[in-house]
This record gives sequence, structure tokens and C-alpha cells, in this order.
Amino acid sequence: MKKKIKKINASILIIGNEILSGRTQDLNVLFISNWLNTHCGILISEVRIIPDIEKKIIFNVLDLSKKFKYVFTTGGIGPTHDDITSLSISKAFKIKYAFNNQAYSLLENYYGKENFNDARKKMAKMPVGSKLIFNPSSTAPGFKIKNVLCLPGVPSILKSMMPNLKKYLIKGSLTISKTISLVTVESKIAYQLDKLQKKYFKKIEIGSYPFFRLGKVGVSVVLRSVDKKVLKKCEIEFLKIIKKNKINIYSP
Amino acid sequence: MKKKIKKINASILIIGNEILSGRTQDLNVLFISNWLNTHCGILISEVRIIPDIEKKIIFNVLDLSKKFKYVFTTGGIGPTHDDITSLSISKAFKIKYAFNNQAYSLLENYYGKENFNDARKKMAKMPVGSKLIFNPSSTAPGFKIKNVLCLPGVPSILKSMMPNLKKYLIKGSLTISKTISLVTVESKIAYQLDKLQKKYFKKIEIGSYPFFRLGKVGVSVVLRSVDKKVLKKCEIEFLKIIKKNKINIYSP
Repeated sequence: MKKKIKKINASILIIGNEILSGRTQDLNVLFISNWLNTHCGILISEVRIIPDIEKKIIFNVLDLSKKFKYVFTTGGIGPTHDDITSLSISKAFKIKYAFNNQAYSLLENYYGKENFNDARKKMAKMPVGSKLIFNPSSTAPGFKIKNVLCLPGVPSILKSMMPNLKKYLIKGSLTISKTISLVTVESKIAYQLDKLQKKYFKKIEIGSYPFFRLGKVGVSVVLRSVDKKVLKKCEIEFLKIIKKNKINIYSP
Repeated sequence: MKKKIKKINASILIIGNEILSGRTQDLNVLFISNWLNTHCGILISEVRIIPDIEKKIIFNVLDLSKKFKYVFTTGGIGPTHDDITSLSISKAFKIKYAFNNQAYSLLENYYGKENFNDARKKMAKMPVGSKLIFNPSSTAPGFKIKNVLCLPGVPSILKSMMPNLKKYLIKGSLTISKTISLVTVESKIAYQLDKLQKKYFKKIEIGSYPFFRLGKVGVSVVLRSVDKKVLKKCEIEFLKIIKKNKINIYSP
């Protein structure tokens, strides 16, 4: 019996002026994409990066949550004035914004009663009915409300929290990829790749990426599919084409 | 006489499966944002990352070109089957997709007549009426059509082309930023930052970013403004607050 293929498409919403201004290099897209595919068979189909502006957060959360199975937000759940993600999402879904008792206890316990000031308390506020995403690095939890999962912006903290949101996700088919790096230029294999892509239309996604390494020019051809057998068949066919065209495999 | 402030907001559209799949770390957002602000006083207000799918390119190009003064696209202007940016943009604007004579000559001259195959010729095809963005690295030009400026995805090539698109852009007021790094945690300055942000509402954008360096915890406070004088005034006020609260400046 053939295994049914289940595609699950998600999106990432990066919230933060510091990414848009060019102050900070985003590292979360790469990490989240890889992690979701490897652990849950979920594909990121769109990413948006927007500023810390309430109406923009509201618009994009609603728009993406309609278009995709899941929306992963990063940033804006800390203690300062520019952390407005939780409040904005409450407003987007017209859900009351209030203390989450469990988050409140966790944070009060972590900081101690005497040091649990208003700014820290703010991190326990979220849309009523949210489920917590536990944070083993610095306690302040993320949360899931409807199909939106909210994570912090600091990459090391975000990474440590990913295993704790797995339970909220439905798993899809894992996308496997095979990279074949060649000593050639794109325009010399473009025709063959086009033919191959047409043959494996919708079954394999073929990407072509030029590279320059240690003075050598090459092309990485990436075959991606949820079907292992078809991927292998396509790979064998591609290797034959390469051989026939006297193109060498790149070995670093 | 007070200098008039001119805000120009733009967006970036990253086109490429390799960024969404987590194969490739995007580096272009950071570079373009910094370059545009420093050289042209243009601010990036939104970024989208989408796959190599025609209907998605069409939708997002039209949507962003309506919302922003400029749209900078990266990726999808090479010679292979997955390079569909130029054709998709032609379709988006309902403009004929054809050879650009100047681009054709440049590429023919670069590759030599005998090596100028169909894949390479494809890089000379674009919406009719496009203006070229010259490429000092590998010749294949980018182009500008309406308020959309198309650049390649390879960061080193993109970087080399930025000076050549400057002539197509209207300049805005430069945003200046001042970063003050503190030996503290966000929740200890959140109240003061909130008050300061409210006082300088719409004049200064205040960001707060926790960091962890060499085992030390700190917060970088970033003040951003197009008005140098107001920025200085806000900085002095902030330094007074810091001193009053006995918070130390971080010195690495």
C-alpha cells in the first residue's frame, strides 16, 4: 500500500525593527525551517518580516493564519515597551489579554517574589486560552493561540524551546533532499534541468544554485521530494545525464 | 530653516525555495537595508520570502509595489528553469517579456557568440521598457520596471550591483542610530524606556535588545531618528536616567 503524502504548509512572521533596519542578522528562519521539516515534516512556504507596529502585526497574523496551517511568530514577547506581540495577537483575534496563571507562577518562582516587577509580570500576559510553550533557558514562556505559535526573537532561547512546541503540531510527510554539486556553470545544464523538472513535475522540486568556493565555480543541484523512491529514480537519471554531458562532480 | 524630513519606505521580496527550505542563510536583507539607509535614506519596512512559484511572485510584486515606494526583489534572474522572476514580473504588470537589446549585447560580448546559448540568452529577457542595473561581477544585469528593482540572489554579485541602482532612487532623510549597551537586564529598565518612548513618540524609535556575551548579560538600547538634534537630546536624557538608576555602561 502506498503511503499517503501529507503536505503541511506553514509561515513565519518575524516581528522586529532590528531585523528590518539591518542592525541584526536574522538566524531564526533557517533554524525554524530546518527544524520543522526534520522533526515534523512541516514546510515553510512564506516568511514575512515586519516592524513592531500593532496594526501591522494584527494584519499579518490574521492574513497568514488564514492562509497557512500554522504561523510561527518570533520576537516581541519580552518585558519592554517594544514587545507588543502578545497584546497585538489578542487584539487580532479579539481575545482578552490577561495574566496566564501558570506563566505567572513560573516567572514569580524564577525571579522570586521581591524581584517580580511589572515589566517581568508583563511576560505572563497573553491571549486568554493560550497554551504555553515552555522555555528551559530563561523561563518566560512562548504560547500557542489558535494556529499561531509565538516564540522569542533571541535565537539561542528560541532553539531551546522548539522541542516544547512539537506536541501542538500535526505531522506531515518529511521532505528529503539530495544535493549534487557539479564543476560547471548553470547555463551548461539549464536545458537538461528544465527537461528533468518537466518530467518530474510536482513530484520533485529541482533547484539550481551557483557557488564560488576557493576560486572554483560550480553549481549545486538540489532535488527535493517527499517520495524517497521517486527521488532516487530522479537522482540516478540526473547522474546519467551528467555523465553523458561529461560534467564532473565537485569534490572539495 | 528646519530641514524637511522625507521618509521613504521600501520593501524587499526574496524569491527562492532555498531560503524557505532552510538550505541557504539569507544575507541580502541585512545588506540591502543597511546600504539603502546609509546611501539613500530609504527604510525597509517589510520583507517577504516566497518560493519560486509564478502566482506567488505576481501577487506579492503587485501587492508590495502598491504599498511601498520601491520593491527590491532578489533571486530568480539566472539561466535555469527555476529562474522565473523576470517572466513573472512581466505577467504581473501585463508587459511584454522580450529581449532587451542592451542586455543581449552585453551578454553576447561577455560569453562570446559561440558560447551564447539559449540559457544565457534568457538572462537578457525582461519586461519591455526595463532599465538595466549593471553587474560588474558577472555581467547578467538586473533591471528596474515601474517601482520594482530586480537583483540576483547571490550576495556577492548583489553587493557589487547596488551602486548601479542608486541613480533610479529618490533619496530620503537618513536615519541615524545611537546604541548604548548596558550591564543590566531588560526588566530593570523597561519602565524608564517606556516613559522615554512615550515622551519622544514618533520622533525617536527606541529598541531594547538583550545580549549574552562572554558570559555577561546586558541590554543594547538603540535610539533611531532622522533628526540629529532630537537624537542627541534623547541620548543625554537617557544617560542621565542610567546614571540615576546606577546602571553601568557595558564596555567589552
